Amino acid sequence: MTDTQALHEQMLKLGQQAQAATNQVASLTLNQRNQILTNIAQALIKQTDDILAANQLDLDQYGSTLSGPMVKRLTLTKAVLAEMADSLHSLVQLADPLAGPYENWTNQAGLKINVVTVPLGVVAMIYEARPNVTVDAASLAIKSGNTVILRGGKEAIHTNRYLVQLMRQILSDLGYNPDIIQLVTDTSHASVDELLHLRSYIDVLIPRGSAAFIDHVVTNATVPVIETGAGNTHIFVDESADFDQALNIIENAKTQKPAVCNAAEKLLIHQNIAAEFLPLVIDRLQTQDQVELRGDVASCALAPNQLTAATAADWDTEYNDLIMGVKIVDDVQDAIKWINQHTTHHSETILTENADHAQLFMREIDAAVVYQNASSRFTDGFQFGFGAEIGISTQKLHARGPMGLKALTTIKYEIFGQGQIRP
Amino acid sequence: MTDTQALHEQMLKLGQQAQAATNQVASLTLNQRNQILTNIAQALIKQTDDILAANQLDLDQYGSTLSGPMVKRLTLTKAVLAEMADSLHSLVQLADPLAGPYENWTNQAGLKINVVTVPLGVVAMIYEARPNVTVDAASLAIKSGNTVILRGGKEAIHTNRYLVQLMRQILSDLGYNPDIIQLVTDTSHASVDELLHLRSYIDVLIPRGSAAFIDHVVTNATVPVIETGAGNTHIFVDESADFDQALNIIENAKTQKPAVCNAAEKLLIHQNIAAEFLPLVIDRLQTQDQVELRGDVASCALAPNQLTAATAADWDTEYNDLIMGVKIVDDVQDAIKWINQHTTHHSETILTENADHAQLFMREIDAAVVYQNASSRFTDGFQFGFGAEIGISTQKLHARGPMGLKALTTIKYEIFGQGQIRP
Repeated sequence: MTDTQALHEQMLKLGQQAQAATNQVASLTLNQRNQILTNIAQALIKQTDDILAANQLDLDQYGSTLSGPMVKRLTLTKAVLAEMADSLHSLVQLADPLAGPYENWTNQAGLKINVVTVPLGVVAMIYEARPNVTVDAASLAIKSGNTVILRGGKEAIHTNRYLVQLMRQILSDLGYNPDIIQLVTDTSHASVDELLHLRSYIDVLIPRGSAAFIDHVVTNATVPVIETGAGNTHIFVDESADFDQALNIIENAKTQKPAVCNAAEKLLIHQNIAAEFLPLVIDRLQTQDQVELRGDVASCALAPNQLTAATAADWDTEYNDLIMGVKIVDDVQDAIKWINQHTTHHSETILTENADHAQLFMREIDAAVVYQNASSRFTDGFQFGFGAEIGISTQKLHARGPMGLKALTTIKYEIFGQGQIRP
Repeated sequence: MTDTQALHEQMLKLGQQAQAATNQVASLTLNQRNQILTNIAQALIKQTDDILAANQLDLDQYGSTLSGPMVKRLTLTKAVLAEMADSLHSLVQLADPLAGPYENWTNQAGLKINVVTVPLGVVAMIYEARPNVTVDAASLAIKSGNTVILRGGKEAIHTNRYLVQLMRQILSDLGYNPDIIQLVTDTSHASVDELLHLRSYIDVLIPRGSAAFIDHVVTNATVPVIETGAGNTHIFVDESADFDQALNIIENAKTQKPAVCNAAEKLLIHQNIAAEFLPLVIDRLQTQDQVELRGDVASCALAPNQLTAATAADWDTEYNDLIMGVKIVDDVQDAIKWINQHTTHHSETILTENADHAQLFMREIDAAVVYQNASSRFTDGFQFGFGAEIGISTQKLHARGPMGLKALTTIKYEIFGQGQIRP
């Protein structure tokens, strides 16, 4: 058997094992599911030293080859593990996503139709070098009655192996099938491509990563996918905007955490205020916050030698860095048109005191979340009050925007008859 | 420009035009959307002669090459057009799928979050030689505020051209963009493959057709797809079943309309009643109803020379014909295991007087609709009381089972702030 065949067999087996475990986890009571999460939280604290040791192996192997932000994402500490445990305890407190009340009615033929909420079945996650996602994804899947297949980045493989083994042991100790949580230990691209085609076994695949990676997944997958996270997000500063408020919001959306998908990437300014507002932006963002501003022709003309000239590619680029594209637009309609051509459908913002313009922007912008006078950094399951988040959907089917536990469920029609046949 | 390039350009243009029309149809009031449907209903009656003449061209060209059921699907009559008009009037009566009440709350930061229901945008349908789907799909799309791209079978092209032209004229006469409804007039396979890849323009593609065709679509599409319709549906006759009721249900589910996806294809019989029940099935279905029964080894042994021997392929085949596979199973657990291996996740039935077995079957069977003691022919939007149906989803994301107007909508978060930034 070639390596390719061996991997294919191994991945098929993983899929079969995940599916075989679905009925068990789906039939656990809320208390039983919460018990698993509580035990995982306790183990994260109890096994802190061993987890950090596994994490150190990853850092030793890859730390020198990764960028600063990547190293930060990969690194676990006592404090990070304590936060992860806290987050599990919070998840325990959340209501059961599988509980009723269910819809039900009796149809014309006298059939009793119950619409019940059920787990999706097998949830697969592909993600990068963030070992906390390993525990988050597994615990969200279990809370919603699903089994999970995890495929983390190669940089975190020692940590992920340790964490998954720990969680599987907890399942076994409680008398459950450990295959409720499985890790893909092959970290080559080939294992990703195998996952994309496990169509008989995977009910939803949630990819996290760069826009190019998400695009690869969507273009190649035959399993159902929920696209997440790519965020070329815009802020439009309307003629009537409050300048002080606008500067605070732009600064927060751009600089508070520039590497995340809900950070702002592009700034559109109404032409009538551009001459007055642009110098304020340059002062606050470029001078104070060290943000590189890349302008269109009109904004470069307004501030000679102060802006880098943007290229065509800039308008569709998610920088995830202290860089921002700046463009002058005619009016709110022009801003809407531009944004709808360049949006990744994540989060878009209008800063305006004009309620009609806000309504128009809300209605016509094609994005999951549309803001008036607030920072797009609020696009986040916790900030929305969902208490948990498995990702932010940028597509329209099934789930849109921050996805909580409900996004990991579907419905089933249970119909009880007394011999009805169709006339 | 080659034909391939020309088709590619033409399909891109179709996608762009569909998307350009989305904001207009999404902003129509309920009355305006209903007015369009009412005018279409009136035109179907007023233009009956011309529609039937166009339909006759299709029948002249393809009638002799098609099977009886296909000719029946293709043929329009005065009565069929009257039914289509009635169905449009019923659709007018349905509640607005875009109307509130919407969810809304204020989060910890004081942001007002509104969750509004919005149209998906551009809905594409690929279907076979049923011209009524052309009007159904267009009217469901418009009622839910979407634009639609229709790709019907080549056998119905004259009829579809006429019907779409009629509907586009109605849009124009009312002052709306006719591109709210567009027809793909190229009926080669190449136009299907172009549709599958219009990722920037199509929000959902709903394919109808054979299991092999749906599989082609899912395997190749990069646009979001909702799988529909494949129905290898089973009936399990438990030990405690009421025999008379069971025979009536099996007969109805198998023979009342054998060519549709909710018709029964396989019969599983509990081993303890097989010797008594199988002869009754043979008498009713094979002798009276001319259904060909294909048995497993155990059932063939129970009824020597009365059943055709089933092959391995039978157990995964949707016959859509007067054929039924018959198998003896050990018990309800064995039936559940078998069905979960062979189901297309559409509709599955248990016939039993044992409430525990019914609950177990309901919980563990992985299908959109699960029945106790009723015919699976009820899996249908109209029978469920949805008043309309665009297809029956056999997947778990977004929509499951019969899809009404709600399946053509998504949500959007509209957030109103007063300068909030993320701490």
